[in-house]
Amino acid sequence: MANPSPKGIDELELIARLTRDLPANASVIAGPGDDCAVLDLGVPGHLVVFKTDALVQDIHFTMEIEPPRVGHKALARVLSDFAAAAATPVAAVITLGLPTRYDLAWIEGVYTGLRTLATRWEVAIVGGETTCTAGPVFLSIAAVGRVERNKVVRRCGARPGDAVFVSGELGGSIEGRHLDFEPRLAEARWLADNFLPHAMIDLSDGLASDLRHVLGSSRAGAEIRADSIPVSRAARHRCRGDDPARGPLAAALSDGEDYELLFTVASGNAVRVLDGWKAQFPAVRLTCIGRITSEPGLRIRDRQGLREVGEHGYRHFT
Amino acid sequence: MANPSPKGIDELELIARLTRDLPANASVIAGPGDDCAVLDLGVPGHLVVFKTDALVQDIHFTMEIEPPRVGHKALARVLSDFAAAAATPVAAVITLGLPTRYDLAWIEGVYTGLRTLATRWEVAIVGGETTCTAGPVFLSIAAVGRVERNKVVRRCGARPGDAVFVSGELGGSIEGRHLDFEPRLAEARWLADNFLPHAMIDLSDGLASDLRHVLGSSRAGAEIRADSIPVSRAARHRCRGDDPARGPLAAALSDGEDYELLFTVASGNAVRVLDGWKAQFPAVRLTCIGRITSEPGLRIRDRQGLREVGEHGYRHFT
Repeated sequence: MANPSPKGIDELELIARLTRDLPANASVIAGPGDDCAVLDLGVPGHLVVFKTDALVQDIHFTMEIEPPRVGHKALARVLSDFAAAAATPVAAVITLGLPTRYDLAWIEGVYTGLRTLATRWEVAIVGGETTCTAGPVFLSIAAVGRVERNKVVRRCGARPGDAVFVSGELGGSIEGRHLDFEPRLAEARWLADNFLPHAMIDLSDGLASDLRHVLGSSRAGAEIRADSIPVSRAARHRCRGDDPARGPLAAALSDGEDYELLFTVASGNAVRVLDGWKAQFPAVRLTCIGRITSEPGLRIRDRQGLREVGEHGYRHFT
Repeated sequence: MANPSPKGIDELELIARLTRDLPANASVIAGPGDDCAVLDLGVPGHLVVFKTDALVQDIHFTMEIEPPRVGHKALARVLSDFAAAAATPVAAVITLGLPTRYDLAWIEGVYTGLRTLATRWEVAIVGGETTCTAGPVFLSIAAVGRVERNKVVRRCGARPGDAVFVSGELGGSIEGRHLDFEPRLAEARWLADNFLPHAMIDLSDGLASDLRHVLGSSRAGAEIRADSIPVSRAARHRCRGDDPARGPLAAALSDGEDYELLFTVASGNAVRVLDGWKAQFPAVRLTCIGRITSEPGLRIRDRQGLREVGEHGYRHFT
């Protein structure tokens, strides 16, 4: 279930228009355009990280889904953005838009999911708002947290020569992972403490799109290898079953909601990152998929050679 | 346009159920149940304040309203809660739920309203999220800010004997004020700097309900005087025109969305507060409407004597 964008104009164009000339102030270290906003509120040695996200019924979840999984997903998406910044979430507030006649058991189930995930990551739920809506249920969550000043990781730091890594396996998230994923907070923290990635993002729009976000922010390009992309079993399964016209590689490159980490480190650190990760997180795959280049654009190398990846992802690729 | 609550069970009961056993952590100074959450993130001398709120089309605004007023209202409601905590907002994030076919000019108009108010109060807009919805447009805003550790004001500090003040004039907000009000940030800051109110809240549910929130949190009661309630011209007008069955006093007591401040100070400070306020904010009325009592409950004194104010506001009062 990819994150849909309002039609009319392209979502990126809409965001570009809305974020033009937004008011800033001296506290803003990173504003619109990164996974999280980063603020200097005067905490010695630390920055404050701030993020919001929303789920809408029948777009991000359906009423057939067990309610705790809906609550889990709502908060996990926000925490995944904290992971991308190598930040530690501290507190969240919940806004709930409900129809006039709502199912109390459903809401309590959603809160069970929220509460369980928040407890696991020591995130306080410190308030919220309930309101009526004549439309689908919506659930908007904002969170604040902290990161050491010298450890915040953003999208914009990728350097030519960097190795590009992704955690986990990609594609086919709609088979279940989009509801049950665990945000990669521990992995991101470990990376920041040990290697300080140059750039990091969580994969929500799909590998190709999100890597493009990093490249755009970093004013760089990348070359990735088709045979190194870690394609998930769900992506292979879907491409055998429901959707044979789309290859598994295309799914891994373009499916949204993987909620894995993509990061870059200096190439000299690549082997140490892989070895350290394997020792620390033996159950989570980590793959080097390519490298950052000074030449702009995103290119992929496969048996036919090197080719440019089109602007609109990989739907026409296989 | 009062803030509607989901039906089924009472909104307060719903909130009580949902906020039961929420995870907290060592950073939480005030969690659910106050105007804002208050966090200790380690800023020397300061606490961090955190709040979210949402507007829904056809509940809090209609498409006939000029879009900048919608944007203004969305942010002003959040800033009004910062005023209630005597806090200074620093940064906000915006979540926008839009239909598949949206009107770009409308959204840009909303952002004009957001941008203008944010600029006036030096609030940075640092990000957000756009998403599709098949239902009415929604606009959820979260903000973070700061307050000196020794100046944060909450709902829970009212003490027997305190004088109870309200700013401005009450009732009939639906005639226009609910869209155009200026959050009482300057007034609240001045109060905190000069008098440190024992308790403060912004009037969103209506004077009687919001005063009850203060009394409940403070484990106290109050006695107010009917002839001292500052009834707005809009409330008088509505009660002459559209709605003759409801008296203007009842409107001032029960209409929502006044976005004025209600606060309590030690009675010995009452005259200095009034004099100082008049000098500082000559255009904004300030009225002492009664006093805090150790006896619980909310009572009102009028020509017929003293009577208890019913649980469900003043609709049956006049």
